[in-house]
Amino acid sequence: MPVMTNRAWKLVARPEGPFKPENFQWTEDRLPDLAEGQVLVRQIYLSLDPASRGWANPAAGYMPPIPLGAVMRGFGLGVVEESRHPGLKPGDFVQGLLGWQTHSVSDGHAVSRVERDPRIPLAGYLAVLGHIGATAYFGLLDVGKPRSGETLVVSGAAGAVGSLVGQIGKIVGCRVVGIAGSDEKCEWLTELGFDATINYKREPVLSRLRRLCPAGIDVHFENVGTQTLDAALALINTRARIVLCGLISQYNDMVPPPGPRFLGNVLIRRARLEGFIVVDYEDRFPEAFGPLAQWMAEGRLRYRTDIVEGLERAPTAVNRLFEGANIGKLLVRVSDEPAC
Amino acid sequence: MPVMTNRAWKLVARPEGPFKPENFQWTEDRLPDLAEGQVLVRQIYLSLDPASRGWANPAAGYMPPIPLGAVMRGFGLGVVEESRHPGLKPGDFVQGLLGWQTHSVSDGHAVSRVERDPRIPLAGYLAVLGHIGATAYFGLLDVGKPRSGETLVVSGAAGAVGSLVGQIGKIVGCRVVGIAGSDEKCEWLTELGFDATINYKREPVLSRLRRLCPAGIDVHFENVGTQTLDAALALINTRARIVLCGLISQYNDMVPPPGPRFLGNVLIRRARLEGFIVVDYEDRFPEAFGPLAQWMAEGRLRYRTDIVEGLERAPTAVNRLFEGANIGKLLVRVSDEPAC
Repeated sequence: MPVMTNRAWKLVARPEGPFKPENFQWTEDRLPDLAEGQVLVRQIYLSLDPASRGWANPAAGYMPPIPLGAVMRGFGLGVVEESRHPGLKPGDFVQGLLGWQTHSVSDGHAVSRVERDPRIPLAGYLAVLGHIGATAYFGLLDVGKPRSGETLVVSGAAGAVGSLVGQIGKIVGCRVVGIAGSDEKCEWLTELGFDATINYKREPVLSRLRRLCPAGIDVHFENVGTQTLDAALALINTRARIVLCGLISQYNDMVPPPGPRFLGNVLIRRARLEGFIVVDYEDRFPEAFGPLAQWMAEGRLRYRTDIVEGLERAPTAVNRLFEGANIGKLLVRVSDEPAC
Repeated sequence: MPVMTNRAWKLVARPEGPFKPENFQWTEDRLPDLAEGQVLVRQIYLSLDPASRGWANPAAGYMPPIPLGAVMRGFGLGVVEESRHPGLKPGDFVQGLLGWQTHSVSDGHAVSRVERDPRIPLAGYLAVLGHIGATAYFGLLDVGKPRSGETLVVSGAAGAVGSLVGQIGKIVGCRVVGIAGSDEKCEWLTELGFDATINYKREPVLSRLRRLCPAGIDVHFENVGTQTLDAALALINTRARIVLCGLISQYNDMVPPPGPRFLGNVLIRRARLEGFIVVDYEDRFPEAFGPLAQWMAEGRLRYRTDIVEGLERAPTAVNRLFEGANIGKLLVRVSDEPAC
């Protein structure tokens, strides 16, 4: 067996504000031999997600902070190259917290095997049939509980999660309004079947939203922050549900900005604002993947990927998320897909 | 039958900021004769509640706005003087939206009969066995869902609702921390059995709260506004429940203030922030009154009233709520209790 080298980005300094190149260090280390129960995975696609910024902070969030000197945390999809785990064999595709590195040696239970549907490109697993699709599915359906005929508003609508949330909203019969940051993004949302869109960089969100939601807002799915949340709260109906799934606009802030002024409407409208993180639903992921795959096959659930070439670029590419530069799922191609 | 005169405060101008005397007009009108199904009620105690400020605004909240020229809306307790309603007879005590007036003629179904327990003073119905007690009971137990051993924080803790919420929290086995605006209020809360108190006018709320809630906050009951809500959100545990019952600090603001900075913790902690208004529970009030009366009889649920003499004083007395001048339930004595 050849000596295997793992190339990795390690977190060596905590970011203050946006990630900077000096927060990371590139390392090349020899991989250890496999112990019983372990697998060696070669990463193909690394998922860059807004949550990564919070994971780099010194305080524990819903996961422990990444220790300084450790490989930067990240979801990814890879292929098993060697296995001493009974449930995995070379050639199997797996998803999990593979980290910002080319290879990883881990316990087999730390990754989950991808039941590959040949009609779905590998990147589609990270874009839909993984943590992103589960976030949209459970966040909208379990927490937002939309009903047919209701009005759903989604912010960060051209992001990986938001674009799926809006399409699932259409599938369950909602009127869907998406808020995004460019005309190009809004055009894509229209292609996806969103009923209306707002380019928040060019249009006044509250007055546009008021015009586009004549029956008020029943479900609001927040991915961004105070500005969009506030506009939605101004227009919520009685018993509205607000899913707080992300606050990407403020993840780089050292001190969080003031919250929404219209919080009083949560009281007056007896609304529910609930925080949602997909890790709580890991046991239920398969429940989401069935319908998500079905909708993909029917052409009712579409996605887009924004693929950056090469792990070397991860530290700068991650900031595309916070700049709103990506449309759809932001991925890094770490190594080539196996030939079929 | 003597000619009956009704004295009333009518809302004649919408307040901008706090209520001012010129928002109201004192009127004396002859009462109409009773139609079939109507009752004539003489009001004994008028309840002054923070919600009254919202009702005076031009925009509909959870109730339609009070029309200009109409009697100011308010809960109250009175005695039936005449009845053409089969379920009510002279001498019966009733509660309902009796308004800022000495007498009212209404459909019998607009008021609810008080099953008088001779051990409980009449004012105790407005302080506990009415909308206030139901607010504390359902708001805490149904929305907050506290469990024994959890930490409960209550703001506006020396108010009519807050003082009951804290005591019910103790009854269900919580550690209870109350936030109030004077040492006198805090001393009273300690007498009621609160585990700890914070005088927010003298102490830094967040650092005190951090010290007094070493195991974090599981349930937060908000009656006041951004400052206390923000301090609580900074310390919430995973799956915390935040009951948004009131925002008294901002009811006089023409533009609501910015919301809490630590809203991001609702996301990270997968917490639920839910608006609560007791009118949604009217059908279930009797379910609350049994346990509340029992706890009162056992001395486990105590209350205080702050009684202002004479309906003439209502327009100025109502501002005691917003100034934090009252301790316990603020009432106006409109007329004398009947002799036993």
